[in-house]
Amino acid sequence: MDHPYSFDIEEYMSKERFKRFKEFSGDKETPCLIVDLAIIREKYEELRKNLPFAKVFYAVKANPLDEVVTQLQDLGSSFDVATRFELDQLLRLDISPDRMSYGNTIKKERDIAYFYDKGIRLFVSDSEADVEKLARAAPGSRVFFRILTEGLGADWPLSRKFGSHPELTRRLIVKAKELGLEPHGISFHVGSQQRDIGQWSTALTTVGSIFRWAREQAGIQLKMINMGGGFPASYIDPTNDIQEYAEEIYRYITSNLGGETPEIIIEPGRSMAGDSGIIVTEIVNIAKKSKHDLNQWVFLDIGKFGGLIETLDEAIKYPIYFQGGGEAVDAIIAGPTCDSMDIMYEKHTYKMPSDAKIGDRVYFLTCGAYTQSYSSIYFNGFPPLAAYVIK
Amino acid sequence: MDHPYSFDIEEYMSKERFKRFKEFSGDKETPCLIVDLAIIREKYEELRKNLPFAKVFYAVKANPLDEVVTQLQDLGSSFDVATRFELDQLLRLDISPDRMSYGNTIKKERDIAYFYDKGIRLFVSDSEADVEKLARAAPGSRVFFRILTEGLGADWPLSRKFGSHPELTRRLIVKAKELGLEPHGISFHVGSQQRDIGQWSTALTTVGSIFRWAREQAGIQLKMINMGGGFPASYIDPTNDIQEYAEEIYRYITSNLGGETPEIIIEPGRSMAGDSGIIVTEIVNIAKKSKHDLNQWVFLDIGKFGGLIETLDEAIKYPIYFQGGGEAVDAIIAGPTCDSMDIMYEKHTYKMPSDAKIGDRVYFLTCGAYTQSYSSIYFNGFPPLAAYVIK
Repeated sequence: MDHPYSFDIEEYMSKERFKRFKEFSGDKETPCLIVDLAIIREKYEELRKNLPFAKVFYAVKANPLDEVVTQLQDLGSSFDVATRFELDQLLRLDISPDRMSYGNTIKKERDIAYFYDKGIRLFVSDSEADVEKLARAAPGSRVFFRILTEGLGADWPLSRKFGSHPELTRRLIVKAKELGLEPHGISFHVGSQQRDIGQWSTALTTVGSIFRWAREQAGIQLKMINMGGGFPASYIDPTNDIQEYAEEIYRYITSNLGGETPEIIIEPGRSMAGDSGIIVTEIVNIAKKSKHDLNQWVFLDIGKFGGLIETLDEAIKYPIYFQGGGEAVDAIIAGPTCDSMDIMYEKHTYKMPSDAKIGDRVYFLTCGAYTQSYSSIYFNGFPPLAAYVIK
Repeated sequence: MDHPYSFDIEEYMSKERFKRFKEFSGDKETPCLIVDLAIIREKYEELRKNLPFAKVFYAVKANPLDEVVTQLQDLGSSFDVATRFELDQLLRLDISPDRMSYGNTIKKERDIAYFYDKGIRLFVSDSEADVEKLARAAPGSRVFFRILTEGLGADWPLSRKFGSHPELTRRLIVKAKELGLEPHGISFHVGSQQRDIGQWSTALTTVGSIFRWAREQAGIQLKMINMGGGFPASYIDPTNDIQEYAEEIYRYITSNLGGETPEIIIEPGRSMAGDSGIIVTEIVNIAKKSKHDLNQWVFLDIGKFGGLIETLDEAIKYPIYFQGGGEAVDAIIAGPTCDSMDIMYEKHTYKMPSDAKIGDRVYFLTCGAYTQSYSSIYFNGFPPLAAYVIK
């Protein structure tokens, strides 16, 4: 499907809001990321309204800017923390340890001890060696167990990296209890930007089965389901509304968990921060490879290694707003580094206006999540992506 | 082809040298990159010896550490500079502008002006708009024109991002002259880690043809061939020795350029810096997905976003040195972030010793190029890869 250059901005945000972004960025050097905190607030409230039964643990890694984290703290969010570096940041921002989980299945024992020492008592696990580390370094803590899901239908796909099969999960639950930990619940992740709501049904069916097994066969009452993230942000491929996700998921929970009413946790990252950000970039060059080349190459001052790594395999397709008018011309969109992999879109056809010109600003919408923190420290000498916040 | 865990370190370096790396890194926290300057010196001297007819412009982007750049300056190298940020670094290190080229085809006019203002007079170009920018912002400068090559046979492949077809190249040469620039030469790049020497033959045939055309049809005497990079570093897939590259390439030059004796420039990056570095990492976890899983998942404290981005699509296969012994077990090797894409090797089978254990150090060889500068600023909270230099 072609992406027209002349799409209606109101598919993504109000004209006033876009104008505000543009005005705010007017005196900033490109490339830069502008994040509007009001949008994050709206997204948080929308999630709370549609999933009132779920406690929010914001996935800090999606957008770790201090202002984003602080605002979510003020709104009452808890936090899914990936590393001791994120933990240090959150402690610096005065976030209470009882509002955090150490949500990375891959952790050093000394890092677990560090979290425990700072007061964190909620941990994920998916392997025997990790459960043993937790028992030693975080004795008595609550542990939830991540099951392996396949993530079909997700734009930023899952792999088999995280989670264990149910058979192993059951063994881990028993082992954790034997080692003095508190088996607390089950977690899963359906894959980021998951457009197939049915994936939650599959995962929740497995969760329900493990809950029943734990109660009936192992004498363990699990108390929590952590449904991870996967709710979408607004890229160019259509998704369902959050209401539809919420209604369906609620139905899956009640049908699979029967009489049980476990605590429900979600870990939104992309769906919370994605829509809040715009990346402002400049056209550095427009070129053809030969006189009769049907494609125009448009080189921007940001690319894969400056914050747009999720364009890998053209996985995430950002709405791109060009200025100018005229005919719609096929564009290959590439970044400014000397790396030949630094091409954002070549297979998927983006259109640009024929009178767009070198020096024009171009706006990438829905860039609030998984952009700035990925940007490289000094590749080709480029500094990491600058970020600004509209309060 | 499997990669055995018990390979002989002497395929890559002397035992003494490896011991020195290990000892030097012993008190450093992992992950970290250790660069041995002596290896870069040897590589420089080896290139000079085998290609005495070529002037070296080191591709700073491959490894921009101050100590690396300064040593190459002392050895007499010139520098291929990608951005004004690298230019600022080189000026800070007191490198003379007449030893630099602005070797990125993608540049803003104000950056060209900045280079010109600092004294740089040698620029690459591959498009009409860029030639016009150069004429305005760097009047009278020497320009070389990059032709499009396909890069088949390269491990880190080329794309069509850089260069123009010969027909357009010829027009650019004429245009540059008309606009008061000095058409100086032709450049190409056969693709990084190019294992097929024949690619230089193809490129040099085109170059020879453009030289002849320029002299006979346009009255322009081109004076330089910039052969870019592409010479290999020592990854696990075998390559020819640099001597063989040099002999073949020299033959291609003489057979294609006939009586002409243009200046020859090369821009080694990977071949100069690659072998000089080792990344030291720690095993964070070893896990299976189920009891009977045939694969072990080995999670390290470095991954794709911490400096090993060239493992994308398993393109670059680093030699990985495990400690311990026992049976050889199939390993899937993954990084420490919560990103499911952060898996280094899953299709290509790496072997690990069955008695390797959590907490062991693991050494990635040939990591001196295109690693540290790519590392992300704060993804999952991880700081950029630390780098140390053995002098």
